[in-house]
Amino acid sequence: MGLEHQTKGESVDVFEAVRKRRSIRKFADRPIEGEQLTKILDAARWAPTAGNQQRWRFIVVTSPTLKEMVRKISPGIFSRPAAFVVICSLREEELSHWDESLLLADCAIAAQNMLLAAYALGLGSCIALSFSKIALKEILDIPEHAEPEFIITLGYANEQPQPPPRLPLEEIVFAERYGEGWEP
Amino acid sequence: MGLEHQTKGESVDVFEAVRKRRSIRKFADRPIEGEQLTKILDAARWAPTAGNQQRWRFIVVTSPTLKEMVRKISPGIFSRPAAFVVICSLREEELSHWDESLLLADCAIAAQNMLLAAYALGLGSCIALSFSKIALKEILDIPEHAEPEFIITLGYANEQPQPPPRLPLEEIVFAERYGEGWEP
Repeated sequence: MGLEHQTKGESVDVFEAVRKRRSIRKFADRPIEGEQLTKILDAARWAPTAGNQQRWRFIVVTSPTLKEMVRKISPGIFSRPAAFVVICSLREEELSHWDESLLLADCAIAAQNMLLAAYALGLGSCIALSFSKIALKEILDIPEHAEPEFIITLGYANEQPQPPPRLPLEEIVFAERYGEGWEP
Repeated sequence: MGLEHQTKGESVDVFEAVRKRRSIRKFADRPIEGEQLTKILDAARWAPTAGNQQRWRFIVVTSPTLKEMVRKISPGIFSRPAAFVVICSLREEELSHWDESLLLADCAIAAQNMLLAAYALGLGSCIALSFSKIALKEILDIPEHAEPEFIITLGYANEQPQPPPRLPLEEIVFAERYGEGWEP
């Protein structure tokens, strides 16, 4: 099983990727290539960051032993992806709540670039948010000043989930002021 | 001035959009079409959210008077975009710090979909983070239980900024454990 456009090098339209990307939670027992990882990480690198500060770091985990340890402390990860990428924010100095929010947003923006890039390469992915930060820092030697924000799972999909229903635009978009009807 | 692929309907590759999108801060005095807004908002709608909760709302501001008021309380917005989209998170009940983080991440992920969609449509955009939330809530009648997280500016670009330098992958990516060298 897999996605439709697995032929490498084929161009994938932005709107197709946005619309057809699914969160994949079951992965095939098949590795992914270094070149695919490079492209996905490069997509993260080109994400905008507040003030171009680029205060994120990415840990690629492909070692079976480490993957198993990460999986055990992440209740939301059931299957065994080919790779995890842990996105960390850098917090060298004391940060305000506002600064923490900016860093978290920057990591989330980079994560979305990664999901779209993975889709374009024929790979499945998901953002995992539920994990023990303390345990993850221990397992991956993450220093005090770095904060693991998200785990991205990556691999060949072993499922083709239906899109979860989305609210219609009329319910989530307002015109000019909050609550005022907007017509698409 | 503008972007290279302004011909509507042309397919834009995911990696091109990720790599060539720039934060645009100077806009031409030219409106954007309803259809473009619909496509950009639909891209936000298809962003993944934690537990598919879709707890974001979007306010499209195109009224000149309201735009001017929004601009005045947003120190980071110098030029006059064709539209603002304010992304709000829903906070009906008392939220933990963790829940607030999830909602913020969901809004950031939707924002990135919007920036990429705007690029694919030949439009410029930027995420504005610096604004008075209290004043914005007042101007746009945003209720107590909704929190404006980001303002997205949208319009035809009136500049072609160079890409701000990015750190090389070797500096921001680690293999298996934090700090261990990764080879692209």
